[in-house]
Amino acid sequence: MSTAAPAAVLDVLRDEQFADRATAWERAGAVPREDVDDLAGHGLLGITVGTAYNGSDLPLVDVVEVHRRVAAASPSLHSLLVVHAMVCHALRRFASPELRDSYLPELATGRVIAAFALTETEGGADAGALATRIDRDGDTLRVTGVKRWLSFGQIADAYLVFGLTGGLDSCALVDAGTGVRVEPEPRTAGLRAARLARVTFDGATAPAGRAVGRPGTGIPFVATSCLTLGRLYVAAGSAGIAQAALDLAVGHAATRSKGGRALGDHQLVRGLLADAALAAESAAHYLRAATREVEDRAPTAAVTAARAKLLASRAAGSVTATASRLLGAEGQTEDHPLARLVAAARVHEVIEGPTEVLQDVVAAALLRDPGAAWKGQQ
Amino acid sequence: MSTAAPAAVLDVLRDEQFADRATAWERAGAVPREDVDDLAGHGLLGITVGTAYNGSDLPLVDVVEVHRRVAAASPSLHSLLVVHAMVCHALRRFASPELRDSYLPELATGRVIAAFALTETEGGADAGALATRIDRDGDTLRVTGVKRWLSFGQIADAYLVFGLTGGLDSCALVDAGTGVRVEPEPRTAGLRAARLARVTFDGATAPAGRAVGRPGTGIPFVATSCLTLGRLYVAAGSAGIAQAALDLAVGHAATRSKGGRALGDHQLVRGLLADAALAAESAAHYLRAATREVEDRAPTAAVTAARAKLLASRAAGSVTATASRLLGAEGQTEDHPLARLVAAARVHEVIEGPTEVLQDVVAAALLRDPGAAWKGQQ
Amino acid sequence: MSTAAPAAVLDVLRDEQFADRATAWERAGAVPREDVDDLAGHGLLGITVGTAYNGSDLPLVDVVEVHRRVAAASPSLHSLLVVHAMVCHALRRFASPELRDSYLPELATGRVIAAFALTETEGGADAGALATRIDRDGDTLRVTGVKRWLSFGQIADAYLVFGLTGGLDSCALVDAGTGVRVEPEPRTAGLRAARLARVTFDGATAPAGRAVGRPGTGIPFVATSCLTLGRLYVAAGSAGIAQAALDLAVGHAATRSKGGRALGDHQLVRGLLADAALAAESAAHYLRAATREVEDRAPTAAVTAARAKLLASRAAGSVTATASRLLGAEGQTEDHPLARLVAAARVHEVIEGPTEVLQDVVAAALLRDPGAAWKGQQ
Amino acid sequence: MSTAAPAAVLDVLRDEQFADRATAWERAGAVPREDVDDLAGHGLLGITVGTAYNGSDLPLVDVVEVHRRVAAASPSLHSLLVVHAMVCHALRRFASPELRDSYLPELATGRVIAAFALTETEGGADAGALATRIDRDGDTLRVTGVKRWLSFGQIADAYLVFGLTGGLDSCALVDAGTGVRVEPEPRTAGLRAARLARVTFDGATAPAGRAVGRPGTGIPFVATSCLTLGRLYVAAGSAGIAQAALDLAVGHAATRSKGGRALGDHQLVRGLLADAALAAESAAHYLRAATREVEDRAPTAAVTAARAKLLASRAAGSVTATASRLLGAEGQTEDHPLARLVAAARVHEVIEGPTEVLQDVVAAALLRDPGAAWKGQQ
Repeated sequence: MSTAAPAAVLDVLRDEQFADRATAWERAGAVPREDVDDLAGHGLLGITVGTAYNGSDLPLVDVVEVHRRVAAASPSLHSLLVVHAMVCHALRRFASPELRDSYLPELATGRVIAAFALTETEGGADAGALATRIDRDGDTLRVTGVKRWLSFGQIADAYLVFGLTGGLDSCALVDAGTGVRVEPEPRTAGLRAARLARVTFDGATAPAGRAVGRPGTGIPFVATSCLTLGRLYVAAGSAGIAQAALDLAVGHAATRSKGGRALGDHQLVRGLLADAALAAESAAHYLRAATREVEDRAPTAAVTAARAKLLASRAAGSVTATASRLLGAEGQTEDHPLARLVAAARVHEVIEGPTEVLQDVVAAALLRDPGAAWKGQQ
Repeated sequence: MSTAAPAAVLDVLRDEQFADRATAWERAGAVPREDVDDLAGHGLLGITVGTAYNGSDLPLVDVVEVHRRVAAASPSLHSLLVVHAMVCHALRRFASPELRDSYLPELATGRVIAAFALTETEGGADAGALATRIDRDGDTLRVTGVKRWLSFGQIADAYLVFGLTGGLDSCALVDAGTGVRVEPEPRTAGLRAARLARVTFDGATAPAGRAVGRPGTGIPFVATSCLTLGRLYVAAGSAGIAQAALDLAVGHAATRSKGGRALGDHQLVRGLLADAALAAESAAHYLRAATREVEDRAPTAAVTAARAKLLASRAAGSVTATASRLLGAEGQTEDHPLARLVAAARVHEVIEGPTEVLQDVVAAALLRDPGAAWKGQQ
Repeated sequence: MSTAAPAAVLDVLRDEQFADRATAWERAGAVPREDVDDLAGHGLLGITVGTAYNGSDLPLVDVVEVHRRVAAASPSLHSLLVVHAMVCHALRRFASPELRDSYLPELATGRVIAAFALTETEGGADAGALATRIDRDGDTLRVTGVKRWLSFGQIADAYLVFGLTGGLDSCALVDAGTGVRVEPEPRTAGLRAARLARVTFDGATAPAGRAVGRPGTGIPFVATSCLTLGRLYVAAGSAGIAQAALDLAVGHAATRSKGGRALGDHQLVRGLLADAALAAESAAHYLRAATREVEDRAPTAAVTAARAKLLASRAAGSVTATASRLLGAEGQTEDHPLARLVAAARVHEVIEGPTEVLQDVVAAALLRDPGAAWKGQQ
Repeated sequence: MSTAAPAAVLDVLRDEQFADRATAWERAGAVPREDVDDLAGHGLLGITVGTAYNGSDLPLVDVVEVHRRVAAASPSLHSLLVVHAMVCHALRRFASPELRDSYLPELATGRVIAAFALTETEGGADAGALATRIDRDGDTLRVTGVKRWLSFGQIADAYLVFGLTGGLDSCALVDAGTGVRVEPEPRTAGLRAARLARVTFDGATAPAGRAVGRPGTGIPFVATSCLTLGRLYVAAGSAGIAQAALDLAVGHAATRSKGGRALGDHQLVRGLLADAALAAESAAHYLRAATREVEDRAPTAAVTAARAKLLASRAAGSVTATASRLLGAEGQTEDHPLARLVAAARVHEVIEGPTEVLQDVVAAALLRDPGAAWKGQQ
């Protein structure tokens, strides 16, 4: 049943039809649930989950590679992988054994699709700053609040909701259904097919056992831990976007001519390609370093993941911009793969911590231990 | 009848409903002909044409201001103004009196919509490099070739076509109709409503009097002269896009808060706004200088217009990117004004001379007269 | 006597020997007092002072042009012009008639060299943040404190000192001499000849009439007003540095060859030159706008001067970096004019308001009136 | 005798007095021969040479680390390590056993200092483009030509000279002495103490056995192979400069305050530090990858070394510029460690292949195998 072999996953991604599906999703503005089910059947949603829970338990370096390749083909689908993996991580690490055992197999096989419900209108993921409430009433949790821009929130079966319980930030897994109103957000140019939803919890309830972590740990432990992984995965996606855009640019320059000369013979084009390659590869280098640190649970892993996301999302922005200039009008047509990479790169700059937030994380680490900078590189 | 007062034009642009129309055009992926007719009725297409020809003959500085404002609201519509004004300019300056007198009034009032048919698949606007042929056969011109990415080519009534006549590059005004096949190009993310067309001339004919300029002057005189104006107008459009994006960013920062503090109080946000303002205003300064030089027919006007276009299109790119980061997901939704500004900025970088071509024009002028650089600034 | 004709000033700057003198100053690490006297004799220090006070009262646009040209030749000497003009301005606008009448003619002719003594070790020009005290004792002012990095402080005859009088920030003109200890600061790579001094006031006194403005106006009026001018003049200097570096780069590319091809025929070199020209000219455009606003006492003048300084100092940085790359080792030799331009550009980024401070000034103005951004460009 | 322990080398670099010596060298404008001898006595010049030849045969990763640390302390001394290692490499790989056996031990222990004599006034390292001649006359080589900007050429005992032999580019090791005229080049602001020399060969001779490689292999084999190593070592130096500048910036921000707030609490300062850290670490990542490929003799090693040098030299430029802004006047004083890092970064951008040349190398590799880009990252 499970053991969704990674090979099967990679086969799916290599399939030429996959690119066509990705194009169709963007055009339609939605990855349909049946396509999600189909991909889940190939094991795409279980790669981070242990084999005991029907997952394939890929090494992190392979998980990251899958993220890189999925984003290169379909940044919209990639966003599902990111949020789904964050929820799986939260359950594995912070949920009660019962909750974990009952949900992880469902998540691994895609029978349950989960969304990560942190963001609110006023943004911010500071402890104590959430407007959503998760009130405890005997053995029942009552959830009240509005969550915004949830990736694949439109088709989710469950939501990992962050909110305040008596002033302490906490977290719970809430099923879709009664008391949960799901509305599509306006479609964004990037991640157009990501089924973004605004989800209003009004009278929604869940058994107390659905709490994930204790009150007070919601932001500083659960969300923070998930965000480190989320940043690593978004970095992987950005690196994939950058590489895919570089490939398009190089392929274009290698095969087209302009003014009677091969495009790739123009020195300024060569300069652009070289700089794009450096940016894409720097992102890949950083991604590998962050992957290792997260795998090894290094104390610096969270900061390195933030660095990798910051660098990779910028690389995605600059390489797609270069490709856009080189491919001209052709690369800007709506069904061209480059168009979705360009638009997705902009989204990657603002999710899982926008540039300014990540700069702050990075600087804080530098300033905490000024002497460490040199040693840090050895 | 004519004297389409500039005031009427500006009134249209200031109208709040104009922004809604611009949004509707982008959503539908087309500025409809009837909307073009309506705007033409307010004089929008006659602002560069003399009053004797039913135009309003605005001073160039006002024409440029109209371009700036139109692009800020609808970059798609702006592209019509650009190509239309280029055709009007070619007729006024290079056509026979008969051709000029019969077409200019039609163009000024929008009864005839004209497209600028220079670009081919292999790109390039070098003299002698065109694949299209304009063969002379007695008193008839026969046009054969394929033109690409023509703004508003889908609804044009006439095409200013560039091609070779016996090896010499020439130019003619060809009516739509027999022998002219019009196909929509795939829609681009930017200028989504600009009715881009691929136009195939196969058996198309025109009377010999439709020639614009003599054979041999097509690229070095007619096209070059039009392109100087085209670059000025695209610079104006880019400056408008940059300014509109800056306004959105400042407005957002002034009214939203994050982490309990006004967004505009965050120092990094202030840094971004300051830099965006410098970029937008630098573009505006350069635009003014280029406008003056073109107006005065300064010998440096062509180079200054190229400089202005280069700088302004980059400013549009950088300011829209900044606004995109600040506004987050909200600014990336498909109907948000910012979304069309962001996408249009990318198109502006590649039209009327992409960055590399313009850098070459600018450098050639510098190297022709190294000593002039200092003097040039006085 | 006075009427130090601007023509005479420009003649001096055009003199080929002036460049040699500038080189010699940098090599020696000092502009000697006798050279200052000589240049003052040609009217260089009186250009901002009225003819009634032995100045030549140049229009501001000409003053700015002199600053641009002086900095292009000798950024070290330029820094004297900046601080001297700031002191003249403070006396003209804020001093008593007696103080003004007795000192302005001396400053205009260079018999008295004045330094602008605001900066302290802890930096900052916030009202109330100064550590220096200007205590009033009957008819005597007693000055106690340490001022840092004063341009030409080593040879100054008088200091315009800012400090606190009973907690209120105030300002006074203090002669060199008893109680004033002058020590050279370590030499900086840029502005190597600018005679930077650390000046310790310990027991220094001045008659009460030497106060410039009333207590409480020192920072918000006197210093602020001087800084607007100072920023305009530094912007002029930066623009001159950028232009001079561009000239060197263009001249080099026009006359040297590499790999058997003229350097200027390499497309990447052309791209660098074009971008450098845009940067230099954007600075010049901004400088002109700021000059007009300061001349017209526009309410936006202070912000525009800050913008001009910010943009021009960056242009100086980027154009000198480009020239440095193009000229290679040759342009980095210590006596090459480029070497002093490169080093000076770095200094210009941190004086009269570093980048961060100016970004804040610019952003504050944007946020005060979000709606004004569009109007502001018209 | 040999076994110049790496530990001894690192001990020297860690010595606090080493920084003072580096400062003194820059001030004096020369690393004296006796200091070179002293450092050679600690094994600094033998780290790349086999133990059979009196070297310590460090693994490449440790050699690179030594380069990184030496450049961080003294970019001038680092340039000696670079050229010396290039000559050692050429002898080891391309010289006859006799030549190798007689010179390598001398080079490893510093009894012979060697310079790399490739650069000429017209620059360029294209095969067949050299103006220097190495004529064969029986068993004697006669060398005629002028070499420029040779690091430590002023104190070299031998020169690895590149020139044409009957139209074919070749290479020979020529001793200083008769027929070799050494003149100091004008001192450059960066690498001020690197003893740059212009060396004129006029009547210089050497036995035929001093040829290194056969005629025709001089540029495409010997120089190219040396340049790959040279680029790796310069990349290491640039990475060291970037890291040292970052340390200075972080240390400054962590300990100083401005406007009553710790400098490191200012958000814009944090943004600058974060970006500088990303740049420095990206360079370090790239350096490690290039080191591995060179060590493994990967077919892509030459291109990766070019990429690493391109990226690291830019990182050195940007991080030193950031540090320069943060430290203000203090960091620009002539004896401050930052001043030499800033100036050296500019030199690193133009040596061992300036940016444009390296971009071309990188782009050529991309275009040769467009499909490889994606695979290349795995």
